[in-house]
Amino acid sequence: MRTIELRAPYIIFTGASTEPTYAKTGLGMVEWRRNKCKGQIRLSGGTVELGLPHMSLQQAADEGIGSLIIGTAAVGGAIPDHWLDTLEQAAKLGIDIVGGVHTRLSDNPRLRAAADVSGARLVDVRIPPENLPVGTGEKRTGKRILMVGTDCAVGKKYTALALERDMKNAGLNADFRASGQTGIMIAGAGIPIDAVVSDFVSGAAELLSPDNDEDHWDVIEGQGGIFHPGYGAVSFGLLTGSQPDAFILCHEAGRTHIEGWPEFELPTFAEVIDRTIAIGQLTNPAIRCVGASINTSALSEEEAIAYLEHQSSQLGLPCVDPVRYGAEDIVTEIIDSYHPSIKQAVG
Amino acid sequence: MRTIELRAPYIIFTGASTEPTYAKTGLGMVEWRRNKCKGQIRLSGGTVELGLPHMSLQQAADEGIGSLIIGTAAVGGAIPDHWLDTLEQAAKLGIDIVGGVHTRLSDNPRLRAAADVSGARLVDVRIPPENLPVGTGEKRTGKRILMVGTDCAVGKKYTALALERDMKNAGLNADFRASGQTGIMIAGAGIPIDAVVSDFVSGAAELLSPDNDEDHWDVIEGQGGIFHPGYGAVSFGLLTGSQPDAFILCHEAGRTHIEGWPEFELPTFAEVIDRTIAIGQLTNPAIRCVGASINTSALSEEEAIAYLEHQSSQLGLPCVDPVRYGAEDIVTEIIDSYHPSIKQAVG
Repeated sequence: MRTIELRAPYIIFTGASTEPTYAKTGLGMVEWRRNKCKGQIRLSGGTVELGLPHMSLQQAADEGIGSLIIGTAAVGGAIPDHWLDTLEQAAKLGIDIVGGVHTRLSDNPRLRAAADVSGARLVDVRIPPENLPVGTGEKRTGKRILMVGTDCAVGKKYTALALERDMKNAGLNADFRASGQTGIMIAGAGIPIDAVVSDFVSGAAELLSPDNDEDHWDVIEGQGGIFHPGYGAVSFGLLTGSQPDAFILCHEAGRTHIEGWPEFELPTFAEVIDRTIAIGQLTNPAIRCVGASINTSALSEEEAIAYLEHQSSQLGLPCVDPVRYGAEDIVTEIIDSYHPSIKQAVG
Repeated sequence: MRTIELRAPYIIFTGASTEPTYAKTGLGMVEWRRNKCKGQIRLSGGTVELGLPHMSLQQAADEGIGSLIIGTAAVGGAIPDHWLDTLEQAAKLGIDIVGGVHTRLSDNPRLRAAADVSGARLVDVRIPPENLPVGTGEKRTGKRILMVGTDCAVGKKYTALALERDMKNAGLNADFRASGQTGIMIAGAGIPIDAVVSDFVSGAAELLSPDNDEDHWDVIEGQGGIFHPGYGAVSFGLLTGSQPDAFILCHEAGRTHIEGWPEFELPTFAEVIDRTIAIGQLTNPAIRCVGASINTSALSEEEAIAYLEHQSSQLGLPCVDPVRYGAEDIVTEIIDSYHPSIKQAVG
């Protein structure tokens, strides 16, 4: 009964990638957890630059690197043969291998053998821990804020990471909690909630944000969408298990239908907020929406500002694009609502 | 992309059981699928009587029995050693072994070896089929009715089976669809929905009730409860994937709290009905409640009748105890609402 936990610090492996879009995971780790990323290793032909010192595996071992993170995707999603020499050598040196590839790391006999000898772990961030519990619904100490989407892929993970950053900058006690594979690599811990058997999905969500100090916030990465015809059950279990005090509505400006489900119109903001409150009250009667986070990348600067202002006045809540303008307005709302003593001190 | 499917006819194995409560599965199979159950086999010391001809394994093989169903539970839930000779012999004779025990049948080397030689299957009804799809939300042809509970273990499976029986008796075209292990053994097909990874739970529910004739009803076994702090996500995925036209509220009279979760009061009937409609409208805007099914076993005859009458007048819908009085009143409601031509013919 625990989450996946990675051993830091890391060396990031980018294979022979020449396209930064393939190396999104590696770039995200450097963006959000620069201090845990000590070096990069790439194969001949690779050109992606993460802005980290290049490092051999022997150097990595000498410097006490805990994990090699596979920070790039390969075509097809499997482990390409030309990666194996490097991954095997790292495992032989006792460095954990961490990946979210489609084939299991531990199904590869060379990696398995190397890891068995050295004691290195082969960590698949797509595979949930074993023996997850059923959700208890018991109230936990500390505070929780959950990202809730109108759909998948609207910026829930980015919003949570930006909010964690801006909450910490404002002096709040906050930790990002990862519920998906890329988030787990960034956070160094978490559970891939969508891969959990449905009987245990709310129990897994409970493990993600355990008891904590009364002023501590878990900033929980969301999954799917409660109006999603494919993934709604994941969102439901994550919501009831997280028992959030607060949530942020996440949306991409201009999206009108569930991506990949063209028969399904996106729900309105009000529908998502009302349904989230209705379901969330089961485990936290005080649940409320504290703001919206909009991916405005499809809009011009002028359009984006007008859109955010309009939505904010409609909702009566702060509405931010964390990529363009940060999440400070939501942090202010959180301080006003939950930390009046800090507000007084700042004011 | 298919459900579990069992090979009929069956011989039911009751081990050395002397307690009918342990042999609930076998008794349920005889109650609901007598025509598929050709014989019983038990071990020395066993006294449970299913009312079927006793049969040796050789007789079973000679008569073309497709599956030996493990119709009893053992203490601890695993496969006891003293069962193995019989199960192995059946597998050697080419008879499929079907069970819902805690240890996987295929993890037993003797059974595995016997099955490998003969081609018999070792079917674990607790293990979902592989490669389940993500839910599409697409409208399917035919009609569906889902059992919806105020809690677990309130009689959802029994209600569905009784409704299938009474619908068929009334000349309707109906099939029970099993979403749990005992239901799968009774139906001879199905998917254990609560064991499905959460990303695929609504997709699995879609497979359970595929396209069918316009006048055909899938009578779908429910799971969990939409207000259940542990299992709500299962119920949510089953609801959106089933896209039911109609549902039946199932409840046990006298129960006041979620069983095993004493901090959680049971929702009211109105709360369950309203929430089920709100969520179910995502994939079927016409969803409605057509009646309630109450387990009144804790009440006297007089109390039960008063309780059912009171609830029926509150809901404005038929309210039955299918064990005591059958489900005909709900069948009448279904005919009135969905089959006006039959109503006219009967009238």
